[in-house]
Amino acid sequence: MQVSLIILAAGMGSRMNSDLPKVLHPLGAAPMLHHAMAAGRALEPSKVIVVTGHGAEAVAKAAAAFDPDAIIAHQTEQLGTGHAVAQALPHLSGGDAVVLYGDTPFVTADTLERMVEARARHAVVALGFHAADPGRYGRMLAEGEDLQRIVEWKDASDEQRAITLCNSGLICAEAALLAELIAAVGNDNAAGEYYLTDIVALARQRGHSAGVVICDESETLGINTRAELAGAEAAFQARARLDALEDGVTLTAPETVFFALDTFIGRDAVIGPNVIFGPGVTIESGAEIKGFCHLEGCHISRGATVGPFARLRPGAELAEDVHVGNFVEIKNAVLDEGVKVGHLTYLGDAQIGEFTNIGAGTVTCNYDGVMKHRTVIGARAFIGSDTMLVAPVTVGAGAMTASGSVITEDVPAEAMAVARSRQVNKAGLAVRLMERLRAIKAGKA
Amino acid sequence: MQVSLIILAAGMGSRMNSDLPKVLHPLGAAPMLHHAMAAGRALEPSKVIVVTGHGAEAVAKAAAAFDPDAIIAHQTEQLGTGHAVAQALPHLSGGDAVVLYGDTPFVTADTLERMVEARARHAVVALGFHAADPGRYGRMLAEGEDLQRIVEWKDASDEQRAITLCNSGLICAEAALLAELIAAVGNDNAAGEYYLTDIVALARQRGHSAGVVICDESETLGINTRAELAGAEAAFQARARLDALEDGVTLTAPETVFFALDTFIGRDAVIGPNVIFGPGVTIESGAEIKGFCHLEGCHISRGATVGPFARLRPGAELAEDVHVGNFVEIKNAVLDEGVKVGHLTYLGDAQIGEFTNIGAGTVTCNYDGVMKHRTVIGARAFIGSDTMLVAPVTVGAGAMTASGSVITEDVPAEAMAVARSRQVNKAGLAVRLMERLRAIKAGKA
Amino acid sequence: MQVSLIILAAGMGSRMNSDLPKVLHPLGAAPMLHHAMAAGRALEPSKVIVVTGHGAEAVAKAAAAFDPDAIIAHQTEQLGTGHAVAQALPHLSGGDAVVLYGDTPFVTADTLERMVEARARHAVVALGFHAADPGRYGRMLAEGEDLQRIVEWKDASDEQRAITLCNSGLICAEAALLAELIAAVGNDNAAGEYYLTDIVALARQRGHSAGVVICDESETLGINTRAELAGAEAAFQARARLDALEDGVTLTAPETVFFALDTFIGRDAVIGPNVIFGPGVTIESGAEIKGFCHLEGCHISRGATVGPFARLRPGAELAEDVHVGNFVEIKNAVLDEGVKVGHLTYLGDAQIGEFTNIGAGTVTCNYDGVMKHRTVIGARAFIGSDTMLVAPVTVGAGAMTASGSVITEDVPAEAMAVARSRQVNKAGLAVRLMERLRAIKAGKA
Repeated sequence: MQVSLIILAAGMGSRMNSDLPKVLHPLGAAPMLHHAMAAGRALEPSKVIVVTGHGAEAVAKAAAAFDPDAIIAHQTEQLGTGHAVAQALPHLSGGDAVVLYGDTPFVTADTLERMVEARARHAVVALGFHAADPGRYGRMLAEGEDLQRIVEWKDASDEQRAITLCNSGLICAEAALLAELIAAVGNDNAAGEYYLTDIVALARQRGHSAGVVICDESETLGINTRAELAGAEAAFQARARLDALEDGVTLTAPETVFFALDTFIGRDAVIGPNVIFGPGVTIESGAEIKGFCHLEGCHISRGATVGPFARLRPGAELAEDVHVGNFVEIKNAVLDEGVKVGHLTYLGDAQIGEFTNIGAGTVTCNYDGVMKHRTVIGARAFIGSDTMLVAPVTVGAGAMTASGSVITEDVPAEAMAVARSRQVNKAGLAVRLMERLRAIKAGKA
Repeated sequence: MQVSLIILAAGMGSRMNSDLPKVLHPLGAAPMLHHAMAAGRALEPSKVIVVTGHGAEAVAKAAAAFDPDAIIAHQTEQLGTGHAVAQALPHLSGGDAVVLYGDTPFVTADTLERMVEARARHAVVALGFHAADPGRYGRMLAEGEDLQRIVEWKDASDEQRAITLCNSGLICAEAALLAELIAAVGNDNAAGEYYLTDIVALARQRGHSAGVVICDESETLGINTRAELAGAEAAFQARARLDALEDGVTLTAPETVFFALDTFIGRDAVIGPNVIFGPGVTIESGAEIKGFCHLEGCHISRGATVGPFARLRPGAELAEDVHVGNFVEIKNAVLDEGVKVGHLTYLGDAQIGEFTNIGAGTVTCNYDGVMKHRTVIGARAFIGSDTMLVAPVTVGAGAMTASGSVITEDVPAEAMAVARSRQVNKAGLAVRLMERLRAIKAGKA
Repeated sequence: MQVSLIILAAGMGSRMNSDLPKVLHPLGAAPMLHHAMAAGRALEPSKVIVVTGHGAEAVAKAAAAFDPDAIIAHQTEQLGTGHAVAQALPHLSGGDAVVLYGDTPFVTADTLERMVEARARHAVVALGFHAADPGRYGRMLAEGEDLQRIVEWKDASDEQRAITLCNSGLICAEAALLAELIAAVGNDNAAGEYYLTDIVALARQRGHSAGVVICDESETLGINTRAELAGAEAAFQARARLDALEDGVTLTAPETVFFALDTFIGRDAVIGPNVIFGPGVTIESGAEIKGFCHLEGCHISRGATVGPFARLRPGAELAEDVHVGNFVEIKNAVLDEGVKVGHLTYLGDAQIGEFTNIGAGTVTCNYDGVMKHRTVIGARAFIGSDTMLVAPVTVGAGAMTASGSVITEDVPAEAMAVARSRQVNKAGLAVRLMERLRAIKAGKA
């Protein structure tokens, strides 16, 4: 049976004290919204419908960044979760629908799969959890998997309030039935809102069966304040660190490593203290990232060593046994096998051939004030320290550049390029100069 | 009624195992002493008197750094808190006096205000707290706000020891009465010291009323060892991080950000992991500081982005939309709107005009071995990579410098400055050179 | 009485999910194995015998790195702890033997000394601990120091299981007796292994006395998974941080500082947040390391300041009052008193004389593509910014280099070396160039 996802992402999140829509606040270096989308992806949904409201344009853009095929349904007024789902209905075309929340990032793929599976036995499936402190959550009255009723806290008897099985708000239902039930939801309540949860009672009134799937409370954690977001980030990182350890990654100080939602690291890779992963990083087995590195959008191959104090930006591709040392920045550059870039270097928009050595202080001058240009260096070249490579420029295989040279023209293979002045030593001048400077200073004082 | 502050800062702090006077150990990137002074500032005191003893000169200097008008009263011998206050008395001129401690940094402005307010109802006001573990603290016998007596632990009955209201040592009293009571304090006790606390009993003996103001125990935390200092730092940071979150600042990983006592950050500013704030940093709303930045004495305007791996030192002023990238150091330099300094650069003692682009590897050579000099660059200039700006030097608006140039003379507006040699490619020389080097190495081996 | 150490280090550690032998996983920037070796060193052992198995070559190399005189005994098959000890027996020559484990890093020198001391009173001494959760540990039946029996959990009665004194596996015995007892150990058990622990019962059967020494449970912590290793690293760091604080070191944020097994820091040294110590670092009293530093194999003298963002690599020796600033890397280089290296510099294979100033962007070009060479700079020299020092090269005392110079020949003392082109300002060229670039871009678009 095909499944569609409906992800509610219209809320303002006023308690965040921010102009940024709540679902765009970052969690694991990704907009919070991506986490629910990532969990839902495991269902291989035929459609993904994101309901936007506050900051709709930015939210739509973020949704498209995760899934270019995501459909945007705009909710012009925020009249409740039932009303939000109603905006998505026109985009459904049969099958089942699962309703997720953009600010509930921790629901797992496994839980969603269990909900879809339970849908085979029930017309409507709601996700519940046993709350350590049930507080004012709605209570779920169930016998086994059969969900009898969801009772709002304010309507619950003392006996019902003693129940710890609480309503998460996530729903799975047959799409056509969902449309029928949503149409029947009213707003005759204190807030004047249309509640998605009401469809459980409506379904049962119409003779349909309802089921409950139970997950761990931690999966239903919603985010309403910055402090809760910080707590969610900590929870995300704790899980990511443990996963990495279990996958055989060496983390010297796991608590100082920050993962992104999509970080991938191979077995026996070594990650030192204080490493930050932005989005889009893959690291192969046996690579080593030393302390104080900042990586995003890059690939690091087996045997490569990076850092400390290295920054790899999007498009940095390090082949096997590449060495990138301290105070080095790499952006949109492919470094072939065995390339060494030890110190104080910027490589941007470049292609470096295998076993080439890049001296300290080298810069690819890729920007001329108007456009960006590429630098191409062949295999086994030797770029002297403090070489400026004024792009577009090519250095051939086996070529060298003299230290301190500004390379403005292509260098043929095996040639030596020199662009510098001869050294002159002026005897005694240092002493005379210092004396003069001291005299000037004394005169000023 | 005017208020004077008396801050006791004479102790050695021998349990710190340090040559540095205890009150000068840093907390939130400021001497511990500054915290009590900062809390007291809220009272708008007419006089601030700091009682020094051990390391008096250094303590006096630190006090002046916070408040140039602070009066120093030197206590040549450490004979107890009463004796310390006695040194301050000659500087009082009427009004009320509040006695604080340089090693009790967490007392809040609100608590001090409540003490001064209570002084309207009592001749002497003492600050108490309910201790989770009262141990050997002096116990306060009170009925409501009326303080009957302070009983030292060793003199207390079992019944009195069951009291959890404990004496913090902080006192507020009318200045003239304080002088009269301090004169009457004796040193007939095991330690042979003059205790400030004794003035409560003396006041009541003379028919004056005494009051108690109660604060949270955390405010009265004193610091005696380095482990306690580290704990205090952790408590300070925890509070500062929570305050920032509540103020609408985005902190990806709050536990890795270190604030100073005076850090100010606007709403919706984004602070990445591993950012260290030294003293004197202000950041406007919507600016972004990426991971691994070290900032002190700088101002960062709306829309500016900094880091990762950036260091801003005192006098760095970044206007709106400035971009400072990785491995960049800025000191005593004003960067106008839209300036970009992307990589591996040192700007010191400089003024950079709006929308100017600074290439990678640029250095302001501000020191000639004897004096420091300034670099001035106009608007919309383009400084090529690896430009050395030998100060004093001026680059005009719209001017360019060629990559790798050493600029020793002023560059007129709109001119292009070039100071480099032509490139020569020597065919096959790289290969011959490598062969020769390998032969030398083989010969040596 | 002479003592020999036997360190069992043959296990594979399959639960580590790693190709690296378990005892080589790093803890405190040293192979785990070194920790037990370091504790044992306090006994001044006449022989250190390391029993290798999985990854024997790498383990032997790591053992030799800690103690070049360590004897390697190879265990070709892993048939139990008794069998492992049997491999070491041929290397013993009288005296006592202490059996340690390469994956039990936290045993203290004090505990080992107490075991050796107890050996004077008992033929065999076993180390026990009171377990918070005894689980399936073997139980030790003892009266005072007299050890009656060790009962395996599966053989223990309920009454015996209620005993909390558990067997750590560490043993001290007279060497000759150890050999005799090991020969008698059988493998008639479920695992078919030879258990070292069995020698206690065998000793008593032969009329020898056995003793128990009790240590804290934390000392007996073994490491079997990466999560346990991460926990052990956290425990190691917590202890190292507390030790440093007690030794009078100022740690602004102890929880962000990572120590190595052999880090030494003097009193009143100041260590900022986020400092990583690799192996072999010594720091004298009163030196300061600012935030974000990465140090290994270096010595920092009194009054020196380092960082932020500095990397000191093996062989970096900083004399008194040296200043190393941001984005600076020092490797195999001696900096004499008062040298200043403020920014963006690489010094490798160098000797710098006292009070010399190294300008920003300076690089020792120590590698010619085949060999490494040395740079020697005399006292009170002034190296201009962006100076390339093409080694081998010498700059004399009091000499200067002009900013942007490539120094390929020696500079005599007091001389000024210049290797750069004169500046030419081409009027209006910047504007014309930009116009042309914009036209090209527009044409492309």
